[in-house]
Amino acid sequence: MNVQPKRNSLIPESVTTGPLTGSRKIYYSPADKPEVRVPFREVVLEPTANEPNVRVYDASGPYTEADARIDLSMGLPPVRDAWLSKREGFEVYDGRSVRPEDNGDVAGDKLVPPCPANRRPRRGKAGALVTQYEFARAGIITEEMIYVAHRENLGRETMVEGAEARIADGESFGASLPAFVTPEFVRGEIARGRAIIPCNINHPELEPMIIGRNFLVKVNANIGNSAVTSSVAEEVEKLVWSIRWGSDTVMDLSTGRNIHNIRDWIVRNSPVPIGTVPIYQALEKCGGDPIKLTWEIFRDTLIEQAEQGVDYFTIHAGVRLAYVPLTAKRVTGIVSRGGSIMARWCLAHHKESFLYTHFEDICDIMRKYDVSFSLGDGLRPGSGADANDRAQFAELETLGELTKIAWAKGCQVMIEGPGHVPMHKIKINMEKQLKECHEAPFYTLGPLTTDIAPGYDHITSGIGAAMIGWFGCAMLCYVTPKEHLGLPDRDDVKTGVITYRIAAHAGDLAKGHPAAMLRDDALSRARFDFRWEDQFNLGLDPDTARAYHDETLPKDAHKVAHFCSMCGPKFCSMKITQDIRSEVAAMLDNEKTVLDGMAEKSKEFLESGGKLYVKA
Amino acid sequence: MNVQPKRNSLIPESVTTGPLTGSRKIYYSPADKPEVRVPFREVVLEPTANEPNVRVYDASGPYTEADARIDLSMGLPPVRDAWLSKREGFEVYDGRSVRPEDNGDVAGDKLVPPCPANRRPRRGKAGALVTQYEFARAGIITEEMIYVAHRENLGRETMVEGAEARIADGESFGASLPAFVTPEFVRGEIARGRAIIPCNINHPELEPMIIGRNFLVKVNANIGNSAVTSSVAEEVEKLVWSIRWGSDTVMDLSTGRNIHNIRDWIVRNSPVPIGTVPIYQALEKCGGDPIKLTWEIFRDTLIEQAEQGVDYFTIHAGVRLAYVPLTAKRVTGIVSRGGSIMARWCLAHHKESFLYTHFEDICDIMRKYDVSFSLGDGLRPGSGADANDRAQFAELETLGELTKIAWAKGCQVMIEGPGHVPMHKIKINMEKQLKECHEAPFYTLGPLTTDIAPGYDHITSGIGAAMIGWFGCAMLCYVTPKEHLGLPDRDDVKTGVITYRIAAHAGDLAKGHPAAMLRDDALSRARFDFRWEDQFNLGLDPDTARAYHDETLPKDAHKVAHFCSMCGPKFCSMKITQDIRSEVAAMLDNEKTVLDGMAEKSKEFLESGGKLYVKA
Repeated sequence: MNVQPKRNSLIPESVTTGPLTGSRKIYYSPADKPEVRVPFREVVLEPTANEPNVRVYDASGPYTEADARIDLSMGLPPVRDAWLSKREGFEVYDGRSVRPEDNGDVAGDKLVPPCPANRRPRRGKAGALVTQYEFARAGIITEEMIYVAHRENLGRETMVEGAEARIADGESFGASLPAFVTPEFVRGEIARGRAIIPCNINHPELEPMIIGRNFLVKVNANIGNSAVTSSVAEEVEKLVWSIRWGSDTVMDLSTGRNIHNIRDWIVRNSPVPIGTVPIYQALEKCGGDPIKLTWEIFRDTLIEQAEQGVDYFTIHAGVRLAYVPLTAKRVTGIVSRGGSIMARWCLAHHKESFLYTHFEDICDIMRKYDVSFSLGDGLRPGSGADANDRAQFAELETLGELTKIAWAKGCQVMIEGPGHVPMHKIKINMEKQLKECHEAPFYTLGPLTTDIAPGYDHITSGIGAAMIGWFGCAMLCYVTPKEHLGLPDRDDVKTGVITYRIAAHAGDLAKGHPAAMLRDDALSRARFDFRWEDQFNLGLDPDTARAYHDETLPKDAHKVAHFCSMCGPKFCSMKITQDIRSEVAAMLDNEKTVLDGMAEKSKEFLESGGKLYVKA
Repeated sequence: MNVQPKRNSLIPESVTTGPLTGSRKIYYSPADKPEVRVPFREVVLEPTANEPNVRVYDASGPYTEADARIDLSMGLPPVRDAWLSKREGFEVYDGRSVRPEDNGDVAGDKLVPPCPANRRPRRGKAGALVTQYEFARAGIITEEMIYVAHRENLGRETMVEGAEARIADGESFGASLPAFVTPEFVRGEIARGRAIIPCNINHPELEPMIIGRNFLVKVNANIGNSAVTSSVAEEVEKLVWSIRWGSDTVMDLSTGRNIHNIRDWIVRNSPVPIGTVPIYQALEKCGGDPIKLTWEIFRDTLIEQAEQGVDYFTIHAGVRLAYVPLTAKRVTGIVSRGGSIMARWCLAHHKESFLYTHFEDICDIMRKYDVSFSLGDGLRPGSGADANDRAQFAELETLGELTKIAWAKGCQVMIEGPGHVPMHKIKINMEKQLKECHEAPFYTLGPLTTDIAPGYDHITSGIGAAMIGWFGCAMLCYVTPKEHLGLPDRDDVKTGVITYRIAAHAGDLAKGHPAAMLRDDALSRARFDFRWEDQFNLGLDPDTARAYHDETLPKDAHKVAHFCSMCGPKFCSMKITQDIRSEVAAMLDNEKTVLDGMAEKSKEFLESGGKLYVKA
């Protein structure tokens, strides 16, 4: 991994590149679709492993290629351009002009320049097929659908051995996990509204991915500067850094100055879907006063960001005037930024939210660019005490109503969820969301299962995230150790992403995802065989695992030692077990006979009643 | 907190003392039992809080007193001595002489001297009441039972307001949480075998605690040197350090030299129950060769450690000869150290385990000192692939059989559990343990819900621990970030303990423990009121929370600021919510009217159908 020196400049110059330790980037193309080139990461095992290398899902983009030549000014290669330019429903046009207020009225050397990779925007024509939802409903399989099918299968041509048995062994609470993902299955899920491929037609650099209950559980990382701290260089590096460790989408929650141009740099250099909360920028345009917000400012901001290529928008249209008073007796009131902004607007004007009254207008704009809805949970609970209250569920019911409107308009939709929820109240959230929102994918923040651990909320929430991922949540929004305390830095982002990869993977395993356990098994075999390097490299964070091992046993020889410092050589259970196996193997000629012989012996013994117990 | 300088000596000189930041130590005595003095920690809130200080459970012992004067050579005050000396079933005797092999045959300046605080040991007489189980069965309430009742109630004289409603709001899967813990309730639970108070009669320094499904979920931390690394000074500090952060019991898993004398220092200075795995020391006495183990060496080791005051022993008596072959086709074989040692012995001698054949003899010894059983899961799975297999469950069934024998002998019993288990296979572990082991308390390691994150196994296992704690597990054995990689250091111990306190507390909340949520609510109110210091101090780790906040907003003024660096001043949802409330409050005279007015308005609105939606 190369981290090139960075000057403290407004413009990002370099980012972290190179493969993860012990892995190499590979691309897979189906024989009949050479233009679909799906990225994977292959963990290269030691020669002693006697088993194939392990292929894993990889959201990190070209940054982790061995010879990655990244020029942030150029942006990433527009892999979708060929597909998009073939489609007839789009027009290329001049687009909206950037205005000073888009960047918070900064000028001169404080102004971040726009990313030179900008192009003229596309937009969909009325009546044409534009969104993945529209294509899916029309029975058409897009390149994006083919791409994600191969991606979900990890580039396998056929189903994993024993796939059906693994699904049967899992517990998916009524999900419909396929033994093998076909493009037609993807199309069907999108057409039913059960999955989305967030892919703005102005984000050709995107490597498509899918979010839905019948696919691998995904993870989102939030980045973005605030008025208090952080710069553009840091933000682009945070994007690259968070996808390096496994974030599937990234939300840019910037709220400070240069917000438009920072977004330029992020989108042009992002292989993953970028989400935003447009009300944040709209509020910046009103000098931070929620009362001054108008539909016109908001509408203009939607177009601005859609033209840039943002893939999904959080829209807090479920925060209705009538629901605000339901939060009055809460312990922590309204904790969603967007929710509190809209609540303040509604109360101050004594009017229904313009996001709600103009919802169909919003749909019309988002459809034109295939920006997916992430219907925001502005009234999510901010403490366990407020979980599952009337305010939260009233909003969820409204989100269900809006989901149907958005679908009728041709848009892709997912639904945001809480938040802070004790363990025994998590499942009802999933069940109610499926029912009220007609199986649209759920996307939750945590939930945090207790409020007593500031500084460790990646863990309080990782618990809830794993559970709701198992129950059917399609994407988990990470929480970092800095939650409630400050803006996360590089280490916090990594910790947050890895914690959430654990949660997502634990969910996949428990659901019975056919391929999920292969990596666990490969790592466990490496562990049992004392292939330390393989154990490190098969893990989510090879560097940290290796560093921990090095703390007490730094030498190369220790990387093949049949013990570690935890138990020492005499007390290593795995070594003793291997001794047992070898000893019996020596007695019985070959390994297979041993295993069969031991199993047979055990069977006989048990059938005889196993009466060796001697009364003392 | 004071960390005095330590010389790199074999003898511990000083340990971390002083209260946690923002807290003070308090003691509570019931009016009718002044000799029972139960410790708590009181989190002292800011004067602006307008609510009482918050009392929390405190396992940290005298080390966290403000004026703690700790002399490790003297040991802690023997708080139980007065109670024990009144009991008639004990005799004081000379005890076993320490032999060179007890300390691994080290001598001279390599030999750690014994702790000077040693006393002549007590042992129970035949036919007398010795163990807490025997007292409970005889209908007698001991001081230990009174102590833990007050401890579980957090020193409250009466039940928490709304206790029954909180229990009803929880989901305890058939547990019988009391609204208020009486000494008689404690006695009844112990008499039924559903709870234990691990309290060797030779550990008078102990502050008693209870482990059972109908009490607060407890946490264990493992310490101990291995042949590869760490010294006695480090180990005693690890004890003090792990209870400082909330470990309820500590297992000394030492396997290196000086094992006897290090244990002396640990037990004499431990206010929490100490557990050990006696087979480790027995193996040391055989030069590390499992085949040389004998019943006589093991028996002698049990007496040696019982006289020192060890409170519970892990005994792997369920690893029967017949079960070993059941592990032959596992991905990771046998991963319990004790389990693999006994498996090797059984196979090498072609004999049933002496732990099993001599189980009643073991009971007789442990009863004499009231050492509790922790029946070891020697065949626990070491990977998700091996979870819930026949080897694991065969052993569990045997542990159930042994539980009944131990009870018949008058012993207290808990049962150890796995290990590595994917989420969907956790609940069956709890259910099967309750059934097979007749509701004896369950004590699990994790379980780890995935194998792909070495370096983060505190998190992979914290997820499983929270879930099994919710399902009914009584104590959670921590896992640190170093699991599978090396011996944990000070930071790892702290991270492991805090992760597991989160898991235990999340479990208490979900079960509906009547008092558990009070701390969450107090912290959430502090958060909403921007009482930053209170938010830090009410958390599990005030120092880390404060340090994270200080990274971006270090000034004192920021500790009362109505925002943090995460969102900045304009985007703080809590600030906006407070603005909403104040604005309406100003309009409506007083807060109560506001809340009622808002709620009323909402109700009317909803009843009218809330038809403000305007078609675009």
